[in-house]
Amino acid sequence: MTYTLYYSPGAASMAVHWMLIEMQLPFEAKLVSIDAGEQRSAEYLKLNPSGRIPTLMIDGAPRTESTALLMSLAERHPDKGLAPTPGSAARAEWLETMIYLANTVLPAMRDWFYAGKDGDPAGAEAVQALARRRIEGAWDLLDARLSDGRSHLVGHQLSTADLLGTMLMRWSRNMPRPADTWKNLAPYIRRMRSMPSFIELNRREGLTDWSN
Amino acid sequence: MTYTLYYSPGAASMAVHWMLIEMQLPFEAKLVSIDAGEQRSAEYLKLNPSGRIPTLMIDGAPRTESTALLMSLAERHPDKGLAPTPGSAARAEWLETMIYLANTVLPAMRDWFYAGKDGDPAGAEAVQALARRRIEGAWDLLDARLSDGRSHLVGHQLSTADLLGTMLMRWSRNMPRPADTWKNLAPYIRRMRSMPSFIELNRREGLTDWSN
Repeated sequence: MTYTLYYSPGAASMAVHWMLIEMQLPFEAKLVSIDAGEQRSAEYLKLNPSGRIPTLMIDGAPRTESTALLMSLAERHPDKGLAPTPGSAARAEWLETMIYLANTVLPAMRDWFYAGKDGDPAGAEAVQALARRRIEGAWDLLDARLSDGRSHLVGHQLSTADLLGTMLMRWSRNMPRPADTWKNLAPYIRRMRSMPSFIELNRREGLTDWSN
Repeated sequence: MTYTLYYSPGAASMAVHWMLIEMQLPFEAKLVSIDAGEQRSAEYLKLNPSGRIPTLMIDGAPRTESTALLMSLAERHPDKGLAPTPGSAARAEWLETMIYLANTVLPAMRDWFYAGKDGDPAGAEAVQALARRRIEGAWDLLDARLSDGRSHLVGHQLSTADLLGTMLMRWSRNMPRPADTWKNLAPYIRRMRSMPSFIELNRREGLTDWSN
């Protein structure tokens, strides 16, 4: 079972790329540079008609949606322990957290960065204002969750929620209030950034601007 | 294993309520009327501090996020067959579809209905314009998917994606272009609305305005 990941540095592919490195699985990474507009090439659009990054080839079929890819990989490799076991007490909380990140933080981030491209540029400021309010509300909520001293977002062990959550926190680094200015998120972020797989991920994607 | 669902007629609880009826599981349904503002009662906020509907008690703990609840129920009751088996060919497509509905259609619907409440009322029109574009884009995509003659959104059998998707399509009924004006969505919606569990759901929630 090998995988091919189509990624762009720092994009939504980052959490999936991180997970593949963390699990020490064999995979091929193919660069599709968003900066160079390569996600709109005829070749890539054949795989992913919406031109979104990432695409992961699973059993020969192109699959998308980073949150879904993290969940797929977790259940295909249960021995790697990146999701609580089905039926365990933490399982419902993990599912809830993954969906919360997917349907609250991720779309608000899209609005923050792409309001003027997805919609009428004249309305972009209003869309971004609401997006900022929602993103900061999410940091409030996740910060409160970590205030009980837990090491990770779900239970006390690394899960896909941390990979997705940390990627989203990274995206806030140039926002008016970056995630690492929240009291409990700051040490959490430092802890996640110290992971060897995160350091290796940044090296492979050529990223230098959000490290310890 | 019994469940208690806190619901409001026609709200995001509807897909979960539908699933519980479809699976013929024992559960208790408690009405929390959004029209009466009961989701902001002290009693409900103790269960669900964000005041969102639904909440489902699972193993004695309150859990939220309708998409996550559908996924939790599917994996807790695999014999009911409402999600493809882990490892099956349809599984990755099911996960992708659930996440697509959760992170594209659901937040756009929230924007459409609550832009002026979640954000600055002065910016609501711009937020709603982008939301409408995204919702109609989703109907385009789902309509194209059904054009291959499939009976359901994932593979050829009922899954949680149909329960979530149909609920979202229902929410468009008073929009400028309701989902059932799309060529392939129209017969799909008629098929879903003819399900005995959907008819029973509407009877229990006292809904009459979107039936065959």
